[in-house]
Amino acid sequence: MYCLRQWTLVFLGLLLCSRVGMAQQNAETMASAEAAMLEKIYNASLTDGAAYEWLRYLSTRIGGRLSGSVQAEQAITYTKKELEALGLDRVWLQPVMVPKWVRGKAEFAYIESTPGNTNNVPIRALGGSVATPVGGLKAGVVEVSGIEDLKSRDPEDIIGKIVFFNRPMDPTRINTFEAYSGCVDQRHSGAKEAGMLGAVGVIVRSMNLRLDDFPHTGSMSYGDLPVPQRIPAAAISTNGAELLSTTLKLNPDIKFYFAQSCRQLEDVESFNVIGEIKGSENPEKVIVVGGHLDSWDLGDGSHDDGAGCVQSMVVLRLLKKVGYTPKHTIRVVLFMNEENGLRGGRKYAEEVARKGEHHLLALESDAGGFSPRGFSFDCSPELLNQVLAWKPLFEPYLVHQFYAGGSGADIGPLKPNATVLAGLRPDSQRYFDYHHSDADTFEAVNRRELELGAAAMTSLVYLFDNNPPKALPPGSE
Amino acid sequence: MYCLRQWTLVFLGLLLCSRVGMAQQNAETMASAEAAMLEKIYNASLTDGAAYEWLRYLSTRIGGRLSGSVQAEQAITYTKKELEALGLDRVWLQPVMVPKWVRGKAEFAYIESTPGNTNNVPIRALGGSVATPVGGLKAGVVEVSGIEDLKSRDPEDIIGKIVFFNRPMDPTRINTFEAYSGCVDQRHSGAKEAGMLGAVGVIVRSMNLRLDDFPHTGSMSYGDLPVPQRIPAAAISTNGAELLSTTLKLNPDIKFYFAQSCRQLEDVESFNVIGEIKGSENPEKVIVVGGHLDSWDLGDGSHDDGAGCVQSMVVLRLLKKVGYTPKHTIRVVLFMNEENGLRGGRKYAEEVARKGEHHLLALESDAGGFSPRGFSFDCSPELLNQVLAWKPLFEPYLVHQFYAGGSGADIGPLKPNATVLAGLRPDSQRYFDYHHSDADTFEAVNRRELELGAAAMTSLVYLFDNNPPKALPPGSE
Repeated sequence: MYCLRQWTLVFLGLLLCSRVGMAQQNAETMASAEAAMLEKIYNASLTDGAAYEWLRYLSTRIGGRLSGSVQAEQAITYTKKELEALGLDRVWLQPVMVPKWVRGKAEFAYIESTPGNTNNVPIRALGGSVATPVGGLKAGVVEVSGIEDLKSRDPEDIIGKIVFFNRPMDPTRINTFEAYSGCVDQRHSGAKEAGMLGAVGVIVRSMNLRLDDFPHTGSMSYGDLPVPQRIPAAAISTNGAELLSTTLKLNPDIKFYFAQSCRQLEDVESFNVIGEIKGSENPEKVIVVGGHLDSWDLGDGSHDDGAGCVQSMVVLRLLKKVGYTPKHTIRVVLFMNEENGLRGGRKYAEEVARKGEHHLLALESDAGGFSPRGFSFDCSPELLNQVLAWKPLFEPYLVHQFYAGGSGADIGPLKPNATVLAGLRPDSQRYFDYHHSDADTFEAVNRRELELGAAAMTSLVYLFDNNPPKALPPGSE
Repeated sequence: MYCLRQWTLVFLGLLLCSRVGMAQQNAETMASAEAAMLEKIYNASLTDGAAYEWLRYLSTRIGGRLSGSVQAEQAITYTKKELEALGLDRVWLQPVMVPKWVRGKAEFAYIESTPGNTNNVPIRALGGSVATPVGGLKAGVVEVSGIEDLKSRDPEDIIGKIVFFNRPMDPTRINTFEAYSGCVDQRHSGAKEAGMLGAVGVIVRSMNLRLDDFPHTGSMSYGDLPVPQRIPAAAISTNGAELLSTTLKLNPDIKFYFAQSCRQLEDVESFNVIGEIKGSENPEKVIVVGGHLDSWDLGDGSHDDGAGCVQSMVVLRLLKKVGYTPKHTIRVVLFMNEENGLRGGRKYAEEVARKGEHHLLALESDAGGFSPRGFSFDCSPELLNQVLAWKPLFEPYLVHQFYAGGSGADIGPLKPNATVLAGLRPDSQRYFDYHHSDADTFEAVNRRELELGAAAMTSLVYLFDNNPPKALPPGSE
């Protein structure tokens, strides 16, 4: 009996060893096959990439693609054609009604230090703003450091004034998106808050970490403010903001003049552009990659978010290039109207929910076409742990940040129907030099940085497809 | 007896626990103090940095600083003045004789497909090259993929020809410096090898990963080749190289013409610029940071290596800004003549050896002013292990690569007298777009990327100074 038990234990031990050994060997074989596939993906992207030339067309032949504009329609036609040329299993347009805001003629502004003594400064209307009166608007200026500061002022001092929001982005934040988050409320809600207090206009310091002459637009909202209280709002360049602030310090009684003729029109129909490769084993499970096809009308929207669109398109192209047959359906979505409505993202998520589709992964690139540094993941801690096991595979490519965090605006609404949401995280140091301004042009994009981002995205998609994390909730695999 | 032993063990155990606990607590206190100091350094660099404005002067007011040029002398005067303004303990110039090569009048070149049917292409003489005959040089062309390929050809095919070295940089290397290393032999030794075989001239594809119109110069050497065999050599832009290669494929009998009037003059006296803060505890031990003050004459040498110079100067400025008193002597050296002679680096090392100085750390920044990704260390594995313990301190700043590797050309000669050599490793994707060409200008430098590199360097210097690695060889601490 004793002897038998001992032998049994030895036998079980040997069996266990051999199983552990086999499992280890399998894991190593798997990791090595995965490493080889990543190398193929990166090599294809760096030697035979399409992202840069697609972006060249989108940026230099079409340009800024504000929702509802002719350029937005041209971009839909162009990207659909390019996706069709990839020989995907299906390419289609998903209709969505989008807001149409137009800038009108060029804005004009000056600081009037004394009557007749003026300095022109560069401004651009914020997206969604109302126009000034036809002849423009001139008033005294109250400089505030933000909405809290505004609310702390004597209301009498605000009535009839232009409120100048001048809180700069915090340069000590290493991740510049954190600095942006710390400032953007004054751009988004400054006019609503100031309008409630009887101000006549709002000027906001551009969300930019450097001093230059580019005003940076962006979305703003009046919320449910009654129409008569809706006051015009514009961004001023950082150099302009410095000049205005200095002038105010010398003489608080100076006047500011600005004129803009922007307006909100009726909603129009537009489209998300979608293409997919059907999964060979689990076609009902979807991995989606995307960026947003609309952009602001300043510059040509190369970094925001032409880069993310072409990178997402390239994911499907690269998978084909390297001869990989996806097990799950791999889909690219070029979302319409991220900038001033998020209608495309919401529409796509609605359709997903309506059809009961499940998304294993939704991955967005909307942080510029810069050297990829990593990914942020919005998922359970268990899943994040599984995903972290892939980190070493990315080390040769200097992709080193895998962390829990937000993903992307367009894919946010997918959360109830997606296991993992993720965002590509490129180096953020230069992004806000360009973002939402005339400076966001094709010349500011480096081909290698763009293609490396596309390769990183393709690699992550491949890993999710080939061997999805095991900690998925029941039924999601 | 038994009881006594047991109590002794318990007592020893408690003692050990308390020692371990104290050591752990000390280590934690130390790490937290170090983290706080890094935060101060980074904040100072990002809010009150000087690197960018110094670089603006060096680049836009002085410009390209080839050894022996007026601009190199202006740069010496300017940087010495700025170092003096920092209130260092000592600032001085270290004389060094440097080679003086001058470009002469602008180069000119064309491809002659058929007599009278020509296409101009951009070229620039390689540094150290001889001139063409006054009226230029026209000959048939042999395209080769490198020196090996050249040597494999029938020597009869080379005589009287212009050899066109057209091996491109390997785009699949993630570290672009590896791609550069894989190509640079044709630029450095191509003319020597082709001259030995009776060729009359050499044209080399620019060391650049993108297709553009900038020829990239760089050093070349004829070695001990007799003067009559020394043939002129020039770099052609990558677009020019593609055109020449295509034209040759269509008709191997085309001719290439080029004219350049560069020449080597007598050596002249120049200087390394040096400044230091004396150590408060071990002034005889030195930590040196540096870059090279000379540059090529194309562009203004902003990335190569104006960036490294101002970052190195900033290290001393930041240590003062944050109120840190160094224990060891902290020295900045702006080396002269890295590009075409390395005389400054050699001279500095000679003087160090002569005086019997010991360097704890020599750190060079000569890879561009881009987002810092890490450091490479040339030291013993034991020391590297010690240094690796600091890696977590850099994670909040996205500095993630600590690896064994080369340091910098200028500090290489210091090896016999230095415990650790190190190099700042910025993101390398864009570097060769600018390197040694008209495109290396101030506009290509982003302020935050530059200042982040300076902060990373200052942090490493602080850590070495405050708590040098314990595995140092006897007598080196």
